[in-house]
Order: sequence, then structure tokens, then C-alpha cells
Amino acid sequence: MILLNLKPDSAVPLFRQIVTQIKELIENDVVKPGSKLPSTRSLSEKLGVNRSTIYKAYEELWALGYIESRPGSYSVVRKRVELAEVNGNNTGSIIHWCKKSSPGAQKIFDMFAKSRSVNPESMRLKDIINLSPLLMDNRLFPAGEFRKSMNRVLKDNSDEVLDYGEHQGYKPLREYIANRLRSHSISTTAEEILITNGSQHAIDLIFRMMTVPGDTVILEEPTYALAIPLLKLFGIKPAGIPMLDTGMDLNYLDKYLKKNRAAFLYTIPNFQNPTGTTTSQMHREQLLGICEKYKLPLVEDGFEEEMKYFGKVVLPIKSMDKNKCVIYLGSFSKVLFPGARIGWIAAGKECIDRILAIKRFTDLSSNAISQAALYDFCLNGHYDIHIKRMHRLFSKRMRTALKALKKYMPENKVIWSEPAGGYLIWLKLNNIKIDSAEINKIFLKHGVIVSPGKFYYLKQNNDIYFRISISTLNEKEIETGMKRLGEAITKL
Amino acid sequence: MILLNLKPDSAVPLFRQIVTQIKELIENDVVKPGSKLPSTRSLSEKLGVNRSTIYKAYEELWALGYIESRPGSYSVVRKRVELAEVNGNNTGSIIHWCKKSSPGAQKIFDMFAKSRSVNPESMRLKDIINLSPLLMDNRLFPAGEFRKSMNRVLKDNSDEVLDYGEHQGYKPLREYIANRLRSHSISTTAEEILITNGSQHAIDLIFRMMTVPGDTVILEEPTYALAIPLLKLFGIKPAGIPMLDTGMDLNYLDKYLKKNRAAFLYTIPNFQNPTGTTTSQMHREQLLGICEKYKLPLVEDGFEEEMKYFGKVVLPIKSMDKNKCVIYLGSFSKVLFPGARIGWIAAGKECIDRILAIKRFTDLSSNAISQAALYDFCLNGHYDIHIKRMHRLFSKRMRTALKALKKYMPENKVIWSEPAGGYLIWLKLNNIKIDSAEINKIFLKHGVIVSPGKFYYLKQNNDIYFRISISTLNEKEIETGMKRLGEAITKL
Repeated sequence: MILLNLKPDSAVPLFRQIVTQIKELIENDVVKPGSKLPSTRSLSEKLGVNRSTIYKAYEELWALGYIESRPGSYSVVRKRVELAEVNGNNTGSIIHWCKKSSPGAQKIFDMFAKSRSVNPESMRLKDIINLSPLLMDNRLFPAGEFRKSMNRVLKDNSDEVLDYGEHQGYKPLREYIANRLRSHSISTTAEEILITNGSQHAIDLIFRMMTVPGDTVILEEPTYALAIPLLKLFGIKPAGIPMLDTGMDLNYLDKYLKKNRAAFLYTIPNFQNPTGTTTSQMHREQLLGICEKYKLPLVEDGFEEEMKYFGKVVLPIKSMDKNKCVIYLGSFSKVLFPGARIGWIAAGKECIDRILAIKRFTDLSSNAISQAALYDFCLNGHYDIHIKRMHRLFSKRMRTALKALKKYMPENKVIWSEPAGGYLIWLKLNNIKIDSAEINKIFLKHGVIVSPGKFYYLKQNNDIYFRISISTLNEKEIETGMKRLGEAITKL
Repeated sequence: MILLNLKPDSAVPLFRQIVTQIKELIENDVVKPGSKLPSTRSLSEKLGVNRSTIYKAYEELWALGYIESRPGSYSVVRKRVELAEVNGNNTGSIIHWCKKSSPGAQKIFDMFAKSRSVNPESMRLKDIINLSPLLMDNRLFPAGEFRKSMNRVLKDNSDEVLDYGEHQGYKPLREYIANRLRSHSISTTAEEILITNGSQHAIDLIFRMMTVPGDTVILEEPTYALAIPLLKLFGIKPAGIPMLDTGMDLNYLDKYLKKNRAAFLYTIPNFQNPTGTTTSQMHREQLLGICEKYKLPLVEDGFEEEMKYFGKVVLPIKSMDKNKCVIYLGSFSKVLFPGARIGWIAAGKECIDRILAIKRFTDLSSNAISQAALYDFCLNGHYDIHIKRMHRLFSKRMRTALKALKKYMPENKVIWSEPAGGYLIWLKLNNIKIDSAEINKIFLKHGVIVSPGKFYYLKQNNDIYFRISISTLNEKEIETGMKRLGEAITKL
């Protein structure tokens, strides 16, 4: 005889209440191994619950290993495998993992340990205006439409999307991306696109394909902060080319390349991270010309290609790439949402195939479920609509930010430049002497956080820069943030 | 005046028909830039279509850049950015990508180029019984339940799952996995689990953490075919330890380790790929003992841990790992479905953190959407139910396969062993002289394909082995396949 106490009004489904209670009875040895459970019919009558509910509960108890035979005949409680205990005193390992680590792995581990204490990407604090992370405002995620797309895909197409996908990525999505790139004047096809697990993975694959330890890679200085750990992992000597107001210093670059060789050059031509600089068409042409002259692969990170909302069109460097010198990176993460982990590489077939070979053997294929859902989402026009919406919102938000900076920043103490799109503004403190590592300690007292400039430099320097991002903030929050920032800097 | 021709009975939604037709009119210059489109109200009346449909179509035309202002006021056709043409003659690159490739990348590219012509994983042919791929039978995917889970997650939890996830993986899923591993007597917690983009990615991360070019890695011979390209990519010297009927030859291993060092050892103790061998508890203890003696990290690939359906329980090596010497790999790909690309590594915290550091900087985080949906799916008992179902189905299917082999194989020409679970049977041809590369050419004539043994060997040998997989076949197909195989071998 079993005593169950069901609550029909509970949020917990009845079948789960039954499962939980019978589990407890068995685990507490109230019901012993070998005992028969009541038949589904009799239990259903006794509890006044639909018989199919009891059946489902028994099915799960059977699946979980609590009862021996499947429901239908008599169900008998069986002896369970015991769960291993978690060792209370976490004993050490006999392996010296530090010695076992490759030099790159050791360096990146040290960086990781440090970054864990000051991880700017994970700070979503309350009552603080966080101008630090370049994350997306999740209040803007078009989750409802994406859910509908996911539903369609898992309904109509589950055979395909639940299986291993194509190594190169879901073909309809590659076609969509190729077409979209063609609207940015890039001549490409689905065969020249490789889907990756986000842009960071794309950069990783490029390092894997083209570098060996000791190689040089050319980057902008300052540059994307998360490129720096990859330099350590791959044992790369970075060559930082100074950023001018107009972009990478091309004279410096040309001189450097006269005397030195490099595996590739990495550049972010739109709203560069962290400086916010967008280079001119002429700068792009000249940069490509230099790379062609030295036969140097040019990696163009177009991670926010779609987010240009001020000024006239500037075409990607890849659009001028007649000699297949450019490896172009794109992403859905910084316009739509990052959770799908979908980015792409566009490059000539010869190059794409080499990167694909590495991807094929290191992760087989990317998540086909999200790729197919994203394709459906795009096909139904929601990506276009979302981009327009983001332009509308962020051109407003950026104007608010720039206006508020003018209003609240103390004169002669701060310099910044106006970006043509994206989410970032790069500020320099003038005539102020503080340790740049201390900057957030001071700002935090005023209820605001920024991203210190040192994260973006290959070599440390004495200038005090910091980056602010408006990506997660609405206009009111931006206004408040700038006000607090102004107060904090005034008091410095 | 616009002429549209809508088909209300078409599978294409009305709004899409409108978008497509207006696009065409604009692209073919029938409707010129500057012309006004009819108002949504008047077009709705003329076409007899709901006004909101027209609104949606105009909204998309606007988003796509065909019309100037948003719907509501008059919509004016605007001048479009032209799409780049796809270069007809695919010009070559000025970069010598071959010279630019690292040695590992070049080797893996050569392997990839070869494998593309004979890729066993991609062969799902008609009218042929394909015994080659270790894929899942997509007729068995519990797609409906997974869709429900996905729906719940994107409804209740979209903020979280559409954003970057935790570097280490979705915590509730890690907790579920830890608990599940405890039911296999492995003492672990969510902190000691790292979610990866499938098992291949897990192996890749382990190579990245622990090896530099020139290192030795110890593997079973024969071993998992897709471990071999990784050896090339990382520039590893493989040490193949012969597989006996009982598993890796431990005397051979011990002698090898007396004289040689290695970065780690890789083993598949359950239904080894390709031999189908499951090692005994004693063999596992001894193998762990040897690794502990030499302080050699032991990588245990438990990719089909849940698929033991014959014989008594054998516990994973990791369950005996008091000295944190074992790095355990698990996966959902070979029981549930592979499309989510979710695997995991379970190891001591010291070790996991080092692997995590690499993952964190090379792909930021894994797809959170699928992780959360999979967790919901598991929480609701569907994973357990699915596993039981797979046991029921495949214990039957495997019995059918083994019976059919006995029935159809010519005597004295073929030897095989009976697996304790999984999907694989390993066969050896006796007293037959053919080129093992030719085996499928002959089998194909009889309407059957297998996976040639040479894929699994580090060194080539003269014995003729091949692997058959029943993973995608039902009992009838298995019976037919074995019959055809028997006929083919009889004629050899």
C-alpha cells in the first residue's frame, strides 16, 4: 500500500509529483526492492488521476531504474545502482598539470586565472552603469521570432538538423550569407564561406592554419583584447602598428614590412575595437595595396559590418580583393544575439579549404539546429528588420551618448572621437596622472565602470585611455552613465 | 499601377509572394526609383488581402532597402545598392596558401582532400545497405520532445540562452551530467565538468593543452579513425599499443613506458571503435595502475557509456580515479543525436581549468540554446526514456546482426567477436588475399558497403579487417545487409 499526497493545484505536473514521491519512498527504503507497485489502473482509481498519467510516471520510474519491468504488467521495485559520493576532501592529482601543459597552454592559463578576477564581459551589476562590456542588450533580442523559426525547423527538418551537419556549415545559410556579402559589394559564393562557432573561433582557426610558434602577426595597436591571449597560446611575436585617427599608420606598416616578414595582418576597419575608428575607402585601398605588394594575407574583421548608421557607405576591404589576399570575418553575435555561436569566414576557395580541413577534424561540424533556425529567421526577413531597428535605436543612443559627453565631461581633461556606428567610444584622459589599473576603483565609487585601455595594448604605455560601450544601455542609462563619468573625472 | 498575381493556395505565404513580386518589378525596372507604391490600405483592398499582410510585406521591402520610408506614409521606391557580381572566371590568389600553411595544417589538408573522395561518414546512399558510418538512425531522433524543450527554453529563458553562455558550459546541464556520471560511480561535480562542442572538440582541446610537436601520444592500435588526423595536425609521434581480444596489450604498454615518455594515453574501454571490444574491470584497474605508476594522464573516451545492453555492468576507469589521473570524455552524439554538438570533459579541477582556459579564448562559449534545451529534455526524463528505448532496439538489432552473420558468412573465411553494446562489429577475413582498399569496390557490386580496416590503423598491416556499424539500420535492413555481405565474401 502506497501513500501519496498529490497537489492538483501545484505548478509541478501530477506525473512528476508521483515520480518524485515514489522515488523518495524507494530511496528511503519505505518501499523495499522486490515489492510490487499497484497496477496503473488501481492507482489511477485510488488517486483520482488519469491512468495515462500513472502510466507516464511508471514509464519514467522504469527509465530511471527504480522499477524492473515496463508498465503494463506488474511493476516491481528493483535494486538500484548507488550514486558515487562526491569526495569531500578534494584530493590532489598525482599529475603535475603545470609541467604537462604546453608553453602556450601555460601562458593562456595564467592569463585566464588573472582575467577571472576582472572579467569585463561578465559584469552585469545592479545599480551600476556598466560601460565596460561589448555585449548585446538582451532586452532587444528578437526571441519570439527566433523561437518560431526554431519550431519550424525542428518540425519540418528535424532529420537533417539533429544529425551531423555539413563540415562547411548549413548550405542555405552559407548561401544567404554570400548573398548578403554581395550587397556589401563582396564577390563571393557559398563555396567560399565557412561557418564557424563565432568569430573568436574563426580567428583561432586562422592562427592554426597559418602560424607556428615564433611567427609574427601584425595587429593594430590598440587592438581587440581577446586577440592577445591567442598570441600567447600560439607563441606569436606581435607587431603592433600604431592607430592614427584615420586607422593603422600605413607608413609605419610599409616600413615595417620592408624589413620584416609576418604570417598575416589583422585589422578591424569598422568602428575598430577599442578606438571606434572607421577607416576611409582610400585607407582601405592603400592597406590592401601594401598587403598585396608583400603578399601578406589580410584578415579583415567585419564583425559589425551591418552596424554603420552614421555617414556615407564605406565598402569592406574584401570588396576590392581581386587577388584573393583577404580573409574576411563576419558574425551574427554583435547585431542579433551571440547565443547561437555563429560566425563565418569568407575567403578564396584555396584558402577556405585549408581552414575547413582544420575545422572538420577538430569539431566535425557546427550546431546545425541553430544554423537552420537562423537561416529561417533571416529568410523571413527578421534579420533585415532587426538591423534596421538596431540602426534606429543605436543612432539615437549614440547621439545621446555623444551629446551627454559634451555636456558632462570637464573641459581639457578628456578627448574622444565620434564613431560612425557600432557601440564604442574611446576616451583619453589629458593632464591627469593616475595608475590606469586604478581607474575603475575610482569610477566605481561614482556608480560607473569602464573598460581600461591597457586591455587593448600589446605594449603598455603611459597614456590613460579607456573604452566605453553603450551596447547594453538605453538612452536614460546612457545619460546617467555619462553624468556619473563626468563627475568622477572632474574629481580626479 | 502595380500588377501582382497572388496565389492564395500556394505554400508560399501571401506576404512573401507580394515581396517577391514587387522586388522583381523593381529589379527589372518596371517600377522605377522614385515611384510611389500604393498605400497599404488601397493595395489591401485591390488584392483582397488583409492590410496587415501588406504592411508586413512593405516592412520587409523597406528592410531590404527597396523602399525609402517605413510603411505608414507613402512608400517610395529607392535606388538600390547593387549586388556584387560573382566573378565568373575564378581568378587565383597571389598568396601561396600552401607555403603559408603550418606543417600540421598542410598535412591535415592533404588528408582532408583524400578523405573527401571516400568520406565514409557522408554516405547515405539509396538501395545500398551502408554498414560503414557510425552515425545515428535519424528515424529514432526524439525530435518532438526536443522541440518542446526548445520552446520552453526560448519562451522562459531567452535572455539567458541567446546571450553568451558561461565559458565552462550551462551550469544546470553540467550538474545533470555530474549526477549522471555519479550513477556510473564517478565521483564528480559540475565544477569538474567542461562542456565542449562534441567529443572531437574535447580531444582537440586535450591535444592543445598537453602536446607540442614531436611529443608522443599512446593509442590503441587500431583506434578511432578521426584521432589520426589530429596526430598529423599536432605533429605527434603516435605509439600504437596492439589491441588483444581483451583490450590494449598491457605488457606491451608497460614495457613501452619503461623506456619512453608520452604526453598522454588515449583509450576507449567500451565497445572500442573499431573493434567493439569492452575491457574487463580488472583490465581497467591494471591500465589505470600502469598510468599512475608512470604519472601518465589517461584519456578515457566514454562516448557510448550509456549503450551497454549485454552482460554485466563494467564501471568506467574514471570511477577508480582516486589520484586524478583520468580525463573522461562523454557525449550525447551517439545515443541521442549529434546535431546539438554537445560533449563534455570530466577531470580534476586543476586539469579542467587548464583546458577551460584554452576553450574560453578560442570560442568564448558553446551554444547555450542547445545546452539549455538539452537540459530541459533530460530534466523531463526524456533522455532516460530514450536510452532505455535504444537499449531495447539495439540489443534486438545486434542479436539480429550476430545471428545473420552466423547464418550468412562462409565458414573459415570470416572471424568476428560479439560486442557488449554499441553499434560496431569488427570482422577479419581469413585466407583471402585482396587489396583492402579494393574491398568496397567488390562489396558495392553486391549492394553493401563497409568501413575498411585501414582507416583505423596507425601503421598499415597485411591483415584484412573491416568494421560494420548497425547504427542507422533496422532489423530488416541488417538481415539484408548481412546476406549481401555473405554473398560478396563467398565469391571472393
